[in-house]
Amino acid sequence: MNLNEFQQSWLSSPRRVIGMMSGTSLDGIDICLAEFNCNEYGKHGFKVLEKAIYPMDQSLKEFLIHLMQDTISLEEVSHAQQRITNIHAESVLRFLNEKSIDVSTCDLLSVHGQTVWHSPPKSNSAIGHTLQLLSIPALASLTGIRTIGDFRTADIALGGQGAPLVPIFDEEFLYSEKIDTIAVNIGGMANITFIPKNREMNLLAFDTGPGNVLIDLAMRKFFGKQYDEGGVFAKEGRVLDRLWKNLCDIDFIKEAPPKSTGRELFNKALLDSLLEVSFVNTFPGEDIVRTLTDFTAWSIAENIRLFANQESRVIVTGGGANNNTLMMRLKQELPSATFLSTEDLGFDQDSKEALCFAYMGWRSLAGLSGNVPSVTGASNSVVLGSVSC
Amino acid sequence: MNLNEFQQSWLSSPRRVIGMMSGTSLDGIDICLAEFNCNEYGKHGFKVLEKAIYPMDQSLKEFLIHLMQDTISLEEVSHAQQRITNIHAESVLRFLNEKSIDVSTCDLLSVHGQTVWHSPPKSNSAIGHTLQLLSIPALASLTGIRTIGDFRTADIALGGQGAPLVPIFDEEFLYSEKIDTIAVNIGGMANITFIPKNREMNLLAFDTGPGNVLIDLAMRKFFGKQYDEGGVFAKEGRVLDRLWKNLCDIDFIKEAPPKSTGRELFNKALLDSLLEVSFVNTFPGEDIVRTLTDFTAWSIAENIRLFANQESRVIVTGGGANNNTLMMRLKQELPSATFLSTEDLGFDQDSKEALCFAYMGWRSLAGLSGNVPSVTGASNSVVLGSVSC
Repeated sequence: MNLNEFQQSWLSSPRRVIGMMSGTSLDGIDICLAEFNCNEYGKHGFKVLEKAIYPMDQSLKEFLIHLMQDTISLEEVSHAQQRITNIHAESVLRFLNEKSIDVSTCDLLSVHGQTVWHSPPKSNSAIGHTLQLLSIPALASLTGIRTIGDFRTADIALGGQGAPLVPIFDEEFLYSEKIDTIAVNIGGMANITFIPKNREMNLLAFDTGPGNVLIDLAMRKFFGKQYDEGGVFAKEGRVLDRLWKNLCDIDFIKEAPPKSTGRELFNKALLDSLLEVSFVNTFPGEDIVRTLTDFTAWSIAENIRLFANQESRVIVTGGGANNNTLMMRLKQELPSATFLSTEDLGFDQDSKEALCFAYMGWRSLAGLSGNVPSVTGASNSVVLGSVSC
Repeated sequence: MNLNEFQQSWLSSPRRVIGMMSGTSLDGIDICLAEFNCNEYGKHGFKVLEKAIYPMDQSLKEFLIHLMQDTISLEEVSHAQQRITNIHAESVLRFLNEKSIDVSTCDLLSVHGQTVWHSPPKSNSAIGHTLQLLSIPALASLTGIRTIGDFRTADIALGGQGAPLVPIFDEEFLYSEKIDTIAVNIGGMANITFIPKNREMNLLAFDTGPGNVLIDLAMRKFFGKQYDEGGVFAKEGRVLDRLWKNLCDIDFIKEAPPKSTGRELFNKALLDSLLEVSFVNTFPGEDIVRTLTDFTAWSIAENIRLFANQESRVIVTGGGANNNTLMMRLKQELPSATFLSTEDLGFDQDSKEALCFAYMGWRSLAGLSGNVPSVTGASNSVVLGSVSC
């Protein structure tokens, strides 16, 4: 009996995996329970059994924003990791309780952790690094469930961008032989996976730029709110030309993939300086929010036009899918695309990332690689993550 | 075939494990290759096959000291983790190469990581946290060896001090039914394990206070050297009364175990303030170093007198075992103890910690717990660490 036998055995029965995702938007923790299986032809299947979103503890959110924006001490970093781990443990226990799930029926807890820094390798010079705070052994011992996490660092060590990782899920479950497929996820940042119907062509996946991050920052600044629920603030505003132009000038948007980004670029400092140089600080907040919303939709669409195919079927997930103004503008920008609902595909637009990380953990226990080198730029594919029993 | 079968199979053959330790002294990375086995009665055995110490890259050492002493950014923390991981990977590859070890013969790489913060839980109020920087998945993919690390956080999550962890090794391999045994390790900090001959009595293990840390800081300050090689500087100095008294007043020394400490307490700021209030800055550096050396020996001996038994056999390991002045003073402080050489026990005084972490990783793969709750204060014993394949 060796590791291979364990991996074969892992694949031989359906496995129930809890997936958890806490994105850069710091809005909350997405959690889902899914069952994965592998049929006799090696085709994978999944079924989402339960899902929930728990809002991030407000004081922890403020603490994390402080960590990301200010100079800090190692004590604060260590403390943050402990608090992040604890809030994950509490969320798991709450989820098990609320959904009446017996902990002994859960084969794995697969967790992204909280990204607090992400510097992918730049051209051939600077070495990349990324930091997801969460203690896997602590989470395993607090929940009593075998736990896997830290999915990004192995890909980075192999020269990859460490992101995006969702494409392995998209490739397995969203492919259509009839039409090109584009999966768009609008979280704090936005990313797309382009899955050509022609299997000979490489999968393409990358961050397109901001997702909700700039909109959320403006909502906080002008209205003291966490986000623009349903896009109603944006709906009341009009586009401000100078701000629009300055936004469109951000180099990242039109850069060719592979590329990934985060709060290192799209943050409060960037927004403040753009508002300043655009002389728009006295305009109504609705106009700012509208301009940022339109820009976000445009930046996603522009990347699809430049690097994918707008005559595709498009599946939008993430919190941004609930922003009606953003979705309306995205559809206007991509008139020849067919927009699909995720429900037809067996999952919920809000829980896709948690589901993807559940799938990635399930793959790792089976000894299957999780990164797509053509997407991340890593030198080879590798089994991702680290497991505590 | 389930996890239990894998663990049984792990125990059924001898396993070759590389252990790595990089302590708070930041002097270097200790590395050893050991073979572990389990006989038919469940008794564990080990054999050290190779060992080495590689000095810490000087620029990384400076960077880590900066991180520990100054206010910093998350980018620096993330970058530090990547650099620590890389230097571990380089050390492994150098070790395999220099010792002509075939990577395919290594079953496991077991690594402590670099502690940059350690706040154990205080009484019943503050929750503990600890941060060992190193990416386990990245190290596994850079070396091609299954890797385990992050040994301390599970114990902390269960209310333990997360330290010391070495006692599980001491209990298994250093016990004598004839006489009480005390294992002393003098690294950056100093710790002891008290292993009573009476098996009914609980193992006791805790940090006694500084190991080499204060001596090293003074060597750097007064002589621009990393440490007092052989204790020759201390040998030339004399004890300064006021400084000696102020050192002995540090509460931690006489606190009852369980207790653990680190650079959070014993650091440059503490030394500078002690020198200041003792009005000794104009005295010869040798006198300062001598006083700190004597204090270090006294603090270890005082803990043995207060909380263990001075009529024991004593085994000293760690860098401090090479400081002849420190060892002489320790022997003078404990006249009724019998000092033993580690060589009789099958390992080297400099590589014990690396060997211990190799053993801890080997235990975790076998599904055996690694913490001793009576020592750490954790609510229960638990399989430690997190594994990447």
